[in-house]
Amino acid sequence: MVESETAAVKRASIGAKRNPASQNAILDAAEAILNEEGLAGFSIEAVARRARAGKPTIYRWWPTKTALLLDVYQRFKNTRPFPDTGSLEGDLKAFLNNQLIGFWQDRLCGTVFRSIIAEAQGDDDAAQALFAYERGRRKFAEQIIERAKARGEVSAEFNGAVVIELLAGFAWHRLLTGRLNNSDEDIDAVVAMIMAAAKNGLRS
Amino acid sequence: MVESETAAVKRASIGAKRNPASQNAILDAAEAILNEEGLAGFSIEAVARRARAGKPTIYRWWPTKTALLLDVYQRFKNTRPFPDTGSLEGDLKAFLNNQLIGFWQDRLCGTVFRSIIAEAQGDDDAAQALFAYERGRRKFAEQIIERAKARGEVSAEFNGAVVIELLAGFAWHRLLTGRLNNSDEDIDAVVAMIMAAAKNGLRS
Repeated sequence: MVESETAAVKRASIGAKRNPASQNAILDAAEAILNEEGLAGFSIEAVARRARAGKPTIYRWWPTKTALLLDVYQRFKNTRPFPDTGSLEGDLKAFLNNQLIGFWQDRLCGTVFRSIIAEAQGDDDAAQALFAYERGRRKFAEQIIERAKARGEVSAEFNGAVVIELLAGFAWHRLLTGRLNNSDEDIDAVVAMIMAAAKNGLRS
Repeated sequence: MVESETAAVKRASIGAKRNPASQNAILDAAEAILNEEGLAGFSIEAVARRARAGKPTIYRWWPTKTALLLDVYQRFKNTRPFPDTGSLEGDLKAFLNNQLIGFWQDRLCGTVFRSIIAEAQGDDDAAQALFAYERGRRKFAEQIIERAKARGEVSAEFNGAVVIELLAGFAWHRLLTGRLNNSDEDIDAVVAMIMAAAKNGLRS
């Protein structure tokens, strides 16, 4: 049986929808534009041109510019090893330094994330994409506390979710109020505060 | 000597620049528009029409829509008493409940503040207005810790600036990730964490 052209095209189109190579080509193009032209030069149109893809193809995978930006941002972040220093204090400092504040100081990462957060405040699709991403990162980071519990560094009752959100909130606040620089001393103070709370929990 | 019309107009104009009654009339109009039409209906043009003021008059005092919005927001906030419950724990809970999370749940306050933060991420004038406001509020809130020190509840070395920023950061994070509701249990957990750190500081 000879496959009709329509069927073949339809199949190819469905295939393209799930083709990681094409997705990566688009993400590569998006990343290159960000690196070369900054956020101001970033648009679905520019990415389509550079990736030699149709705009509809891009919109099929990323409903908004913010969703595409968030995926590029995640690729940047995934190049950073997640902290596992062997101590709670070391992990919390590395989390703030490498995953949050220090990461945002690197190239455009902070600028991109600020603009994603801003976009999410007025656009429901952008908000859902950011909230899902952020929830996932927070859950992932809670491993820091789980490991500390396994080592007996903190009690089983220690509220890991709240600690991670306090640290993330502190870092977001620094990013959004333009105060990423000169955070080192305050990062130490934040971590010292959490460590003091953790020690108190073990004693009581 | 008879004053020339030009001089009189000039004087009136200078007077108007510093006339708190006119400023209040504009802020009243801005507040009424926000209450009646929401953020979508809010524009310098709409405020000028309602206040029967010229747009240039408004722009002379508020260079951007965001600056005007921030002043209306401050008026909302100033109607809330600042917490002074007599204990650090009570003050920290009231700070989160009344000044931040609970305040943002009231009418449009959270929506307005989200949009101010978002605007500040892409506009330098809006950023400077927000940063100055935020810095002032933070310094003001540090009184909570100063009072606790005066009562001997926490040691003199306790880092009040970091505590206030941790709480503010937590609240901003909740606001910007659409999770203001059902925060009560987590507010208690955040305050318990700070209290544990404070007690540890006193013991050591």
